[in-house]
Amino acid sequence: MRNLKVLMAYNGTRYNGYQSQPCGNTVQDIVENRASRLLNQPISINGCSRTDAGVHAKEFCFNFHMDEKISTIGCDAFVKAMNAMLPADIAILSCEEADENFHARFDSKGKEYMYLVDNSKIRDVFSEKLALHYPYPLDEKRMNNAAGLLVGTHDFGSFCKAEAKQHLKTTVRTLHDFRVERCGENVKFYVRGDGFLHNMVRILVGTLIYVNENKRSEQDILRSLESDDREAAGKTLPPWGLYLNKVFY
Amino acid sequence: MRNLKVLMAYNGTRYNGYQSQPCGNTVQDIVENRASRLLNQPISINGCSRTDAGVHAKEFCFNFHMDEKISTIGCDAFVKAMNAMLPADIAILSCEEADENFHARFDSKGKEYMYLVDNSKIRDVFSEKLALHYPYPLDEKRMNNAAGLLVGTHDFGSFCKAEAKQHLKTTVRTLHDFRVERCGENVKFYVRGDGFLHNMVRILVGTLIYVNENKRSEQDILRSLESDDREAAGKTLPPWGLYLNKVFY
Repeated sequence: MRNLKVLMAYNGTRYNGYQSQPCGNTVQDIVENRASRLLNQPISINGCSRTDAGVHAKEFCFNFHMDEKISTIGCDAFVKAMNAMLPADIAILSCEEADENFHARFDSKGKEYMYLVDNSKIRDVFSEKLALHYPYPLDEKRMNNAAGLLVGTHDFGSFCKAEAKQHLKTTVRTLHDFRVERCGENVKFYVRGDGFLHNMVRILVGTLIYVNENKRSEQDILRSLESDDREAAGKTLPPWGLYLNKVFY
Repeated sequence: MRNLKVLMAYNGTRYNGYQSQPCGNTVQDIVENRASRLLNQPISINGCSRTDAGVHAKEFCFNFHMDEKISTIGCDAFVKAMNAMLPADIAILSCEEADENFHARFDSKGKEYMYLVDNSKIRDVFSEKLALHYPYPLDEKRMNNAAGLLVGTHDFGSFCKAEAKQHLKTTVRTLHDFRVERCGENVKFYVRGDGFLHNMVRILVGTLIYVNENKRSEQDILRSLESDDREAAGKTLPPWGLYLNKVFY
């Protein structure tokens, strides 16, 4: 069996998230369908992560095993053929042979997300569903200070969707980096860590927005890390500003 | 009667073009509907131009007359209220009082269009319907040389949709500027002129792409300007790369 490691990008707007589910229309469904047809065998892919409906990926990693007796396709040919078969909002970026034991999810050492805010006074009509429009002043310095308090190893129970928590052994995670950058009218929030709870990035960025709006103080943030209290953190921002930027191995 | 001059932007993906037509779902229909509700009177807008289905506008100008006895709304309040009522893919950028005789179409001195090409090897999943994906090499210098031959006052009959020509008195137009710029993976074609024939920009840019592909020579371009022969020019590119960038008064 060959084991292929593949990077892809997708615009999540039209999909019910990455991971297969009964109601269908997921990125995984579409990729598995096209790969199975191309390689003439049933293909199951292991994604590096789940992403919610409407969330995008600039560089998502998956791997899959294939029987080299049935298809001897090369990596470059796989990329080309898949891109010809996939819809325009999903693209395969690269493909390489991996060790037989490589697993895109279990071997991931960390991930980087980016949350994109359109901070123009009047919404950018070309970034609908690709950014959160927030027309009020954003103070990057103040948000960066608050973000710094969240970096490190903490119990992020306050930054997790309540229903998702009961299935977890621990809500302790390590954030390696959390910073805010302005590029003209766009404000980008970068979050890098070893693992993320459900909705964690959207709540982390929502908390910085609340700090910006004087609805939370730095004191509240410190409390949120000690209290495991969803109310102590900020609101959950909508999915369409969120991008899975990179996976580390 | 007040006469208001308004600038707007729209993402044309979901619309049957700017101008009202029997099958509905046009930008004009939606703007007139919202303005009529807001101002409590039937509003008809004069657009600076038509745009085809799928074509976008970064700065489209329209004007309309309103009875100031029925509504005394200020310009800033008009912008704010309209943006709250319009769908996310149409935005009002500004509004000002104009002379009673100002007409967005008849008073226009010229327009600038931009045609956007995504020249990355693998398509950008975030610019579907916002750029033409063209993954082959593009030689800006060569295309700029050919573009220079088209600047000036010429008979652009070869650069017009055939069915549209019979209704026109003349197909002579003046191009003030036509140039190609690269910004990373994006290649942008800027065309500025006093007026444009149906599909003219899409054929002009298609002709430069044909020059790039050795399907047309500079000689062919000179011939196309003398011959009124649609075949002498290049192909009509799809609408989704085209943006009305600016209108001059």
